[in-house]
Amino acid sequence: MLTIAMPKGALLKDSIKTLSLIGLDFSALLDNSHRQLQILDPSGQARALLVRAQDVPVYVEYGQAQLGIVGYDVLKEKQPQVAQIADLKFGGCRLSVAVKQTSPYKSARDLPPQARVASKFVKCAADYFQALDLPVEVVPLSGSVELGPLTGMAEAIVDLVSTGRTLKENGLIELEQLFYSTARLIAHPLSYRLDSEQCRAWAEEILGINECMESALKP
Amino acid sequence: MLTIAMPKGALLKDSIKTLSLIGLDFSALLDNSHRQLQILDPSGQARALLVRAQDVPVYVEYGQAQLGIVGYDVLKEKQPQVAQIADLKFGGCRLSVAVKQTSPYKSARDLPPQARVASKFVKCAADYFQALDLPVEVVPLSGSVELGPLTGMAEAIVDLVSTGRTLKENGLIELEQLFYSTARLIAHPLSYRLDSEQCRAWAEEILGINECMESALKP
Repeated sequence: MLTIAMPKGALLKDSIKTLSLIGLDFSALLDNSHRQLQILDPSGQARALLVRAQDVPVYVEYGQAQLGIVGYDVLKEKQPQVAQIADLKFGGCRLSVAVKQTSPYKSARDLPPQARVASKFVKCAADYFQALDLPVEVVPLSGSVELGPLTGMAEAIVDLVSTGRTLKENGLIELEQLFYSTARLIAHPLSYRLDSEQCRAWAEEILGINECMESALKP
Repeated sequence: MLTIAMPKGALLKDSIKTLSLIGLDFSALLDNSHRQLQILDPSGQARALLVRAQDVPVYVEYGQAQLGIVGYDVLKEKQPQVAQIADLKFGGCRLSVAVKQTSPYKSARDLPPQARVASKFVKCAADYFQALDLPVEVVPLSGSVELGPLTGMAEAIVDLVSTGRTLKENGLIELEQLFYSTARLIAHPLSYRLDSEQCRAWAEEILGINECMESALKP
């Protein structure tokens, strides 16, 4: 039976919607009252694992799930050995460099050498500043990254920005964008090649729906 | 002014209680309605930063907070450059190896070579099995670690156990204990030596209360 790793959080609702278009009903995952981490589609065709977004590529990499849905940001940061099959186009947000509104920095290049940059995306942040030849110190935080500049611990942050509300509320301003992130369909490479549990057929159905929706949106 | 990094989650309530015994009132942090991450004690003597447990040692290491309260488990896993001042004795739990109840393994040493061990505590788990000369593969997960054995991805997990309810609900059983963890008072080493913001005096007050409570509990 096909197993799909689904991300908890912001991408879950649209992930369920996408799968419903190919006849898989995992809407029970939205029911907070039962905390099940594994559910079967009522038609018995597929199983979903509900895991943290960061863990989706782990389940797919180890072949425990043939397919998974996860943000591009997680793939860029973790560099898992998975096949990227499709851009599902939802869940758009950007990974950006931000500083205090009151700071003198107008671009990432203005940051002083040895500036401290707080981030959950340690690898992405380090790679970005290395490419700029700017030797900053990345301070790894696991949450509330905006507290870095507010407490004076860091001159800047690298964090996901969606509406920009959190930045604004904390007196921060976006300087540059590292990349734009959307939800991606990923697959276990070997399962995909061998079409285990018909995962390739399922992935192609999702791809078909995806292209169909895209052309419908074109003017 | 003294700054104390406080951990979100399970240790917060008792951390606030401990500080209240030395005259610092951070009870406003328990009020979920205002999501403030920094608050002042009403007497104006100290400031609290409310951050994720894993980030407490980061703020203390960088000197942004002179003191912090955090679980020993986080200190063992992250090995931050902070001074461990006192065992506050609350928030007790153990980091344990667990397997499926139906598995044939009766001790950690029974696990097959190249067994997969899912854990949020990647360093602790790797160190433990290395000391046993058992070459396991640690699978890094960020949440719901119990799903590892349930899906067949891992033979065992290394995770925090408090009441044991989560293990039981998932058909898992504890094999061995890596260590017992409690809340610790930590300090920024240089601030502590130099007694910046009188952090040493404050820490000694906490120590005094701690010993006082301990002797009161003795039979």
